Amino acid sequence: MSFSQVVVVMGSRSDLKIMRAATEILQEFGISVQTQILSAHRTPELLQKSTKIWSESGVKVIIAGAGGAAHLPGMLASFSALPVIGVPISNKAMDGLDSLLSIAQMPRGVPVATVGVDNSVNAGLLALEILALADTPMGRRLSLKIWSYKRRAALQVKKDRKNLKKMTISKFLKLKK
Amino acid sequence: MSFSQVVVVMGSRSDLKIMRAATEILQEFGISVQTQILSAHRTPELLQKSTKIWSESGVKVIIAGAGGAAHLPGMLASFSALPVIGVPISNKAMDGLDSLLSIAQMPRGVPVATVGVDNSVNAGLLALEILALADTPMGRRLSLKIWSYKRRAALQVKKDRKNLKKMTISKFLKLKK
Amino acid sequence: MSFSQVVVVMGSRSDLKIMRAATEILQEFGISVQTQILSAHRTPELLQKSTKIWSESGVKVIIAGAGGAAHLPGMLASFSALPVIGVPISNKAMDGLDSLLSIAQMPRGVPVATVGVDNSVNAGLLALEILALADTPMGRRLSLKIWSYKRRAALQVKKDRKNLKKMTISKFLKLKK
Amino acid sequence: MSFSQVVVVMGSRSDLKIMRAATEILQEFGISVQTQILSAHRTPELLQKSTKIWSESGVKVIIAGAGGAAHLPGMLASFSALPVIGVPISNKAMDGLDSLLSIAQMPRGVPVATVGVDNSVNAGLLALEILALADTPMGRRLSLKIWSYKRRAALQVKKDRKNLKKMTISKFLKLKK
Amino acid sequence: MSFSQVVVVMGSRSDLKIMRAATEILQEFGISVQTQILSAHRTPELLQKSTKIWSESGVKVIIAGAGGAAHLPGMLASFSALPVIGVPISNKAMDGLDSLLSIAQMPRGVPVATVGVDNSVNAGLLALEILALADTPMGRRLSLKIWSYKRRAALQVKKDRKNLKKMTISKFLKLKK
Amino acid sequence: MSFSQVVVVMGSRSDLKIMRAATEILQEFGISVQTQILSAHRTPELLQKSTKIWSESGVKVIIAGAGGAAHLPGMLASFSALPVIGVPISNKAMDGLDSLLSIAQMPRGVPVATVGVDNSVNAGLLALEILALADTPMGRRLSLKIWSYKRRAALQVKKDRKNLKKMTISKFLKLKK
Amino acid sequence: MSFSQVVVVMGSRSDLKIMRAATEILQEFGISVQTQILSAHRTPELLQKSTKIWSESGVKVIIAGAGGAAHLPGMLASFSALPVIGVPISNKAMDGLDSLLSIAQMPRGVPVATVGVDNSVNAGLLALEILALADTPMGRRLSLKIWSYKRRAALQVKKDRKNLKKMTISKFLKLKK
Amino acid sequence: MSFSQVVVVMGSRSDLKIMRAATEILQEFGISVQTQILSAHRTPELLQKSTKIWSESGVKVIIAGAGGAAHLPGMLASFSALPVIGVPISNKAMDGLDSLLSIAQMPRGVPVATVGVDNSVNAGLLALEILALADTPMGRRLSLKIWSYKRRAALQVKKDRKNLKKMTISKFLKLKK
Repeated sequence: MSFSQVVVVMGSRSDLKIMRAATEILQEFGISVQTQILSAHRTPELLQKSTKIWSESGVKVIIAGAGGAAHLPGMLASFSALPVIGVPISNKAMDGLDSLLSIAQMPRGVPVATVGVDNSVNAGLLALEILALADTPMGRRLSLKIWSYKRRAALQVKKDRKNLKKMTISKFLKLKK
Repeated sequence: MSFSQVVVVMGSRSDLKIMRAATEILQEFGISVQTQILSAHRTPELLQKSTKIWSESGVKVIIAGAGGAAHLPGMLASFSALPVIGVPISNKAMDGLDSLLSIAQMPRGVPVATVGVDNSVNAGLLALEILALADTPMGRRLSLKIWSYKRRAALQVKKDRKNLKKMTISKFLKLKK
Repeated sequence: MSFSQVVVVMGSRSDLKIMRAATEILQEFGISVQTQILSAHRTPELLQKSTKIWSESGVKVIIAGAGGAAHLPGMLASFSALPVIGVPISNKAMDGLDSLLSIAQMPRGVPVATVGVDNSVNAGLLALEILALADTPMGRRLSLKIWSYKRRAALQVKKDRKNLKKMTISKFLKLKK
Repeated sequence: MSFSQVVVVMGSRSDLKIMRAATEILQEFGISVQTQILSAHRTPELLQKSTKIWSESGVKVIIAGAGGAAHLPGMLASFSALPVIGVPISNKAMDGLDSLLSIAQMPRGVPVATVGVDNSVNAGLLALEILALADTPMGRRLSLKIWSYKRRAALQVKKDRKNLKKMTISKFLKLKK
Repeated sequence: MSFSQVVVVMGSRSDLKIMRAATEILQEFGISVQTQILSAHRTPELLQKSTKIWSESGVKVIIAGAGGAAHLPGMLASFSALPVIGVPISNKAMDGLDSLLSIAQMPRGVPVATVGVDNSVNAGLLALEILALADTPMGRRLSLKIWSYKRRAALQVKKDRKNLKKMTISKFLKLKK
Repeated sequence: MSFSQVVVVMGSRSDLKIMRAATEILQEFGISVQTQILSAHRTPELLQKSTKIWSESGVKVIIAGAGGAAHLPGMLASFSALPVIGVPISNKAMDGLDSLLSIAQMPRGVPVATVGVDNSVNAGLLALEILALADTPMGRRLSLKIWSYKRRAALQVKKDRKNLKKMTISKFLKLKK
Repeated sequence: MSFSQVVVVMGSRSDLKIMRAATEILQEFGISVQTQILSAHRTPELLQKSTKIWSESGVKVIIAGAGGAAHLPGMLASFSALPVIGVPISNKAMDGLDSLLSIAQMPRGVPVATVGVDNSVNAGLLALEILALADTPMGRRLSLKIWSYKRRAALQVKKDRKNLKKMTISKFLKLKK
Repeated sequence: MSFSQVVVVMGSRSDLKIMRAATEILQEFGISVQTQILSAHRTPELLQKSTKIWSESGVKVIIAGAGGAAHLPGMLASFSALPVIGVPISNKAMDGLDSLLSIAQMPRGVPVATVGVDNSVNAGLLALEILALADTPMGRRLSLKIWSYKRRAALQVKKDRKNLKKMTISKFLKLKK
């Protein structure tokens, strides 16, 4: 357990469907990551204990996803001094506005780095950008990989752009991705 | 400390301006109450410890006020099995919608009894209604007092009503309350 | 009819689909509960009469669910001095924001304990926490049961957590609950 | 009391500041109007009794203003079969959205004619349009008066328009109204 | 065309699915009603002309439904001095908040009687309450019918209530309506 | 590439499903149009370069669609002095309110002409209205075509209106369009 | 009256305080502009007539500001085939969300180019960008002026930037603008 | 310019009033910081160039504040691979909801770490948490300082708590801070 650089936490199995994208992009970039189920409301003591263990065992960034009155990211930010990235998860009611506000509107002194509703990929990328700051071979490799990821995203746009120029909209929309 | 029936908690001095009305109505009804400053984000461990002490020392109801990404009521509900009443406190931005949603939209299993934005008087009254359920002389006395409070509120409406019938609107609006 | 400790009220058959979870958790905890259809707008006089009967026949807590311009919880709070718990029910339009505001934003003097949108389980649990305050064998039994419920919820989180550590995310998501 | 055609109701003295404009425009049009303080939550029984008296004594239209979880217009619509016009009153928090939704989103079967937030003048005018439908000399007189009111409003626009054409914006904005 | 007492207007065929309930309840109560397609934006001149014809041919109440930036009810209120009832119609985006605000927030001087989102039945009932004010046999008959409608609604609640008392929730939910 | 009068831009293939209606109405009116995929966030440099090329090659109007934190229209407005029309595209969360605000609330000095959520047809029509201002044969032809489009829309309303007058609502709703 | 290229319209004197900035920036750029008071709700016939006159007398762009249930821009778009730019004006209640939605969410077929709440400067600039498309000396001059305006805005940013580099924040904030 | 670890950017002088708190907390912790005025909309090319220079000259974290349709943080995230922290700044209209959504709801691939509305202190603290990850003496010193900051915040809460226990609410509220 002790060598993960990022922990991805969520309160329940249903949140995992959204949060797995964070884990997957981190693994894709070669980062060791733990995916953990922990609840601010159901296991507050375990939450505190785990946060302490993570800080001591070299975890660098915590990513936490939660819906509704989303307290998990904020409580993790309270228990640790590591950067905590919060992912608001949308429910049927309220369109995710409740979790966005519950995570973003933290009081002075306890920041959470909030990303968009259900956008756990961006939480993973933000963690990668933070890890890439390290003045180590790993940091530099990561930095190159992020630029290459950005370039691939740009290339995809350019490829789509070229394809669309060559054909009708209907035909383009039928192209395989 | 050990004999209070209700604890009124808030995270900062500025919230006290809103929350003191809860304390005052409880005292007006003869209930022993502690008003405490405690922060879910700044003193999470003390919060947990205090909640345990309250449960063991006979506290019956917890009232908690918080603004923004308001986690205090929810974390108190997590740490205890007592009824927790949450008061959303409004800030300049967001009109209190952020704290209302952060308190009301708690996950299944961890209820918070939410009252209206900045409406700490209602939090106090709700605590009184709960204490009045006790099958004790205190409970019965409280119950009578609540009915008498309701009657006084009704009488005030009726008095205003009568006054307004007797005079012009302009004159009525100048009457002392 | 006279021995129920909790009444669960709603205005129509369609609300029952949401509200039954409140009844069920109360029954699961061994609490006698009546589930009643009553409308603030269609049967206001019966509402008032029933509230009086409940108060006199030993009902301790009223739970009321309503959608849209939700007046049922507020009118029950007006007619009685018992704690009233309100459950906002979401409709197609407005995502439940209309019922949340119609229930939570009650005027000073007439509190309603509001829980999350469609979250009638929490209404049931809040009622249980209130009943558990009684200094009776029933109260103490209930208190133990609530702690045991909280422990089971925590254990479920811990079990999920362990399972997730042992397997891939894909495999975990396919596990039976 | 018995000869008023319109009743203007509100729950408290503070709402009267907004609601008096409804009374005043009705009086300006020569309509007998009662302005009453009555609360859905503090005097529910008196509310019901009064509504019955109004129906029997020839009241034609009820105008009700309320803020927050605004139940007054809806409960009046429940107790009577007269047209009820609701005026949402804004508070500091929520910008009046809470009262607008609490009044407009009534369930099928119990309509309230909602006007804009704090716009009690429009409630008065709507009542006048309804009274003007009567096939009586009063009705016809009222109808003529409404058209003349509309014409005056149009003339004011046209007068402003002409003045603005003749002078600079700065000068125009300094003109007396 | 000339003898209808109510006109139900909407801008397009798709709105008719929502608005037909207004027409149907009016017909059920024996009121002559015209259902018309007319657009504030696509046929503004015809709108104005029609409004004039309606006023002259004895129409008493105008009901108008519209979605999005809903201008139809407001423009009808501008062109006539009859009571105009507006029905906000929800679209996919914005949950009907856009049409609710576009209809309810009319400027001083031009009232629209707004009902709930997609709630055209209430628009029909409000029109019936207005027509029932007429001091004619029709008016009195209508008034009796409205009370009988309210009684039937109350009876349905009472019948549901009795049924629910006699059986389990599951069984009740399977009952035919 | 150089002779198009309008460019329709969007950041991804999925936005094209909404945006194609803009392209199609422009083509229907005989306007040369390029549909391009370009991303403010993934290809910012290409965006700037393309905007410059468009300005120099005679493009008159830019239409840009984007969802979420929609920056594409605003950045195009920043890079060019051509009129930029923004189409907010709705996502699952937030009902399109996020993209509407991200496009409409531009700072002083950098206007974007915002149309309704997902309403790319109106973006196309707005572009046509702008092109029709040209004092050229094309401009005059376009102007006539717009009036004829408006007339056809009015005629469709009138045709629907006539059909509805002749038959029952049920029958009308089954008519082919 | 006949030679103005832009008309700036609003329904009342109070809106003029917001809208005058549109007029002023147009005049600053040497464009002839009429500022007119006209109301969609109070003078609908004059509105229609004026729109026709404008179209025939060479007006190119219409700018309209309105608050609340803002119908003025939409009705102008209905009556004309010119580009109409809408400025949502904020009131005390609703923060301008009502007027923003009432203007932006127009139905297919009748576009309004919406700018930000209270941002009439941007309405003026958008009109200038449209007028600058004309293939005339005036068009070309306007185009140069817009670029020069953009450059001046950029220079102001750069000047502020340089000043801030040279001094403390406190000192910079005290600099005259 | 080359040795700053954090850049704090904003588009205008008025935003500086909010953003200076970010600069100040960074300086308080001994971090070299540049405070810069740069606009996504007015100086897009300079923005891009500056971002490149920052990346090359050792800047680790970018903090950007913006209001309304806030594009600055997103465009900085587009141009660089450094972590970008976004501060939504509230305006009169919209309560900051527009800038919160414009910053938080970024598309997949381009994350911005969003903090609460107007909460630039938290942006500064988040940057410090990120810098403290460095495995250098500076990193370790920073980490200790953050813990000490958290401890001081906790001590302040505890001190307030003790004071409040010793005196009346009125007296406590008059205490100097």
